[in-house]
Amino acid sequence: MKVAGFDIGGANTDLAIVDFDQNEIKNIQVDFAYLPMWSNNDDLSKVLVELIEKICSIDEIDAIGISMTAELVDAYDTKKEGVLDIVEKCENTFNCPIGYVGLDGILTKDEIEKDPLNAAAANWIATCEIATLISDNCIFIDTGSTTTDIIPIKNGKQCAIGNSDFERLATGELVYTGTLRTNLASFLEKVPFNGNEYRVASELFAQTADVFIVLDLIDESDYVCDTFDGEGKSKIECMRRIARVLCADMDMLSERDIVKISKFIHKAQVAQIAEGLNQVSQRQNLDLIVTTGLGKDILDKKAAELLNLEVKSMDNILSDEECVVAPAIGTAIMMNKTL
Amino acid sequence: MKVAGFDIGGANTDLAIVDFDQNEIKNIQVDFAYLPMWSNNDDLSKVLVELIEKICSIDEIDAIGISMTAELVDAYDTKKEGVLDIVEKCENTFNCPIGYVGLDGILTKDEIEKDPLNAAAANWIATCEIATLISDNCIFIDTGSTTTDIIPIKNGKQCAIGNSDFERLATGELVYTGTLRTNLASFLEKVPFNGNEYRVASELFAQTADVFIVLDLIDESDYVCDTFDGEGKSKIECMRRIARVLCADMDMLSERDIVKISKFIHKAQVAQIAEGLNQVSQRQNLDLIVTTGLGKDILDKKAAELLNLEVKSMDNILSDEECVVAPAIGTAIMMNKTL
Repeated sequence: MKVAGFDIGGANTDLAIVDFDQNEIKNIQVDFAYLPMWSNNDDLSKVLVELIEKICSIDEIDAIGISMTAELVDAYDTKKEGVLDIVEKCENTFNCPIGYVGLDGILTKDEIEKDPLNAAAANWIATCEIATLISDNCIFIDTGSTTTDIIPIKNGKQCAIGNSDFERLATGELVYTGTLRTNLASFLEKVPFNGNEYRVASELFAQTADVFIVLDLIDESDYVCDTFDGEGKSKIECMRRIARVLCADMDMLSERDIVKISKFIHKAQVAQIAEGLNQVSQRQNLDLIVTTGLGKDILDKKAAELLNLEVKSMDNILSDEECVVAPAIGTAIMMNKTL
Repeated sequence: MKVAGFDIGGANTDLAIVDFDQNEIKNIQVDFAYLPMWSNNDDLSKVLVELIEKICSIDEIDAIGISMTAELVDAYDTKKEGVLDIVEKCENTFNCPIGYVGLDGILTKDEIEKDPLNAAAANWIATCEIATLISDNCIFIDTGSTTTDIIPIKNGKQCAIGNSDFERLATGELVYTGTLRTNLASFLEKVPFNGNEYRVASELFAQTADVFIVLDLIDESDYVCDTFDGEGKSKIECMRRIARVLCADMDMLSERDIVKISKFIHKAQVAQIAEGLNQVSQRQNLDLIVTTGLGKDILDKKAAELLNLEVKSMDNILSDEECVVAPAIGTAIMMNKTL
């Protein structure tokens, strides 16, 4: 069985093609494309097909699983509208069986049409599927480009108390911060520097990817989203953007200053994730953390360490590249189980 | 004497044409245009001329004063580059005498070319000129669409200790929050609602203008910037954008819920301004506040009241419409004094 799992996010669409022998995974191939669904959702069908065909012929695929978070983008008035539009686009693209990840497992098109919100932002359900391969009692954290899921698992089953992104923002199970696309102004109140505390400019000046480039924690090839100013992704260009967050420029701040400031910003983001993690860990009395996603080592591991929690990485069972698209792999695994 | 004062901001360019008999103001006419300098600065010359010609013939103008903050936009690598570009564009547009507001008063083109940063973000110097008409010892607050200047004045002279926007972000003299364009995610950490504390989505979902429309504190005609989702400015459209900040929509939250949430957001922004105001007031031992700008009643007055400070509004001497472009009027007054 060859199953394709897609995770259709607001900014990125991820694909995993998984070969199964019954329920055993034989081979995994992954890829992703930057597709800003707020402006370009008419390209979805084309992008889904292109992603598959970079790996194999579409005729070889036996079934397709879909998870999504893209229904939140502001091209849709409501999530309901977003889910239904994405489902329709998927149905018009493929002929093989398609299943959609919902809160209670894989759903058909007909089931979703009865209750579209069941499939809204449920991609973390798919990632749970993989976390249970490491431990039946843990909290898994997945920090992607934009958001961080923090999901408790007990006895092999996810036990999140939030049922929607809205509820999960309150429970600590969703922290809206990520490794690439997060506007620095969104989580910085003040930046200490040279004995002063600087407020920040509320503009689209710099994002977390700029900070991690400056600190050598990601490569330019990891920086898969657009820059805020349309300039390049070199270290000096990232520094220029970060300076602007303090209404400064590289005439006023040195490269060394920007590194110092970037280290503070990195710590502030770790603390933001740790705060959500602590809320979940305290409530559920769980102290093993399983990390995945692009931010697993540079953010999640540090957040767990800050709280003195034990950390395992999904890279015990998946490659780093696969960890970045873990929800897509989980989606394929869930879909395979229904066949 | 007929003097035109321009305040060239990142998003808006304001104009005041002031008629003087010696130093006495005989008449003021004002207007403004939305000009996003990060993308459209090549239109600056055209917009300056059009603004004047909506009021009078360009030949009637005896002199032109310019203040600016637009050099900060990310179309410019450094502020120096921004200041020099804006000055060049102004010089190429007009034939009459032109002066530029700098930290130490009006500067010529030649003076600026020696020290461009002197003219960077100095428009608040011009507004001081008007505040002193109300009191020689006060703090004036000007909340525009994007930022808030909080400037101490003693014995008729401004005595801010920050000399650049960068320094002023630390001293409390600049709080980067405004009445229209401020991303809600930039100053909200959590939103209390129905007994829970909700984190917020770090995206470009809603701005302060949306909140003030929902609360009936501004009109659609005041909402002069673009919406984040490209949709309209009606109350229901603003509500939809605000719901999205909590990863919700109008299926999940009622109009009444959004009003409740908007009231909290309004209070949070007042507190943000009050924090900067308190820093300046404590340091300078000043307790009379003079307010101006679009946010004078809905933000600045409330911040002053929160701190039990006495409040006077520039609308004692200027109309509401004139208060919105106070830096442009101050620029004309400063320029007239040099003639």
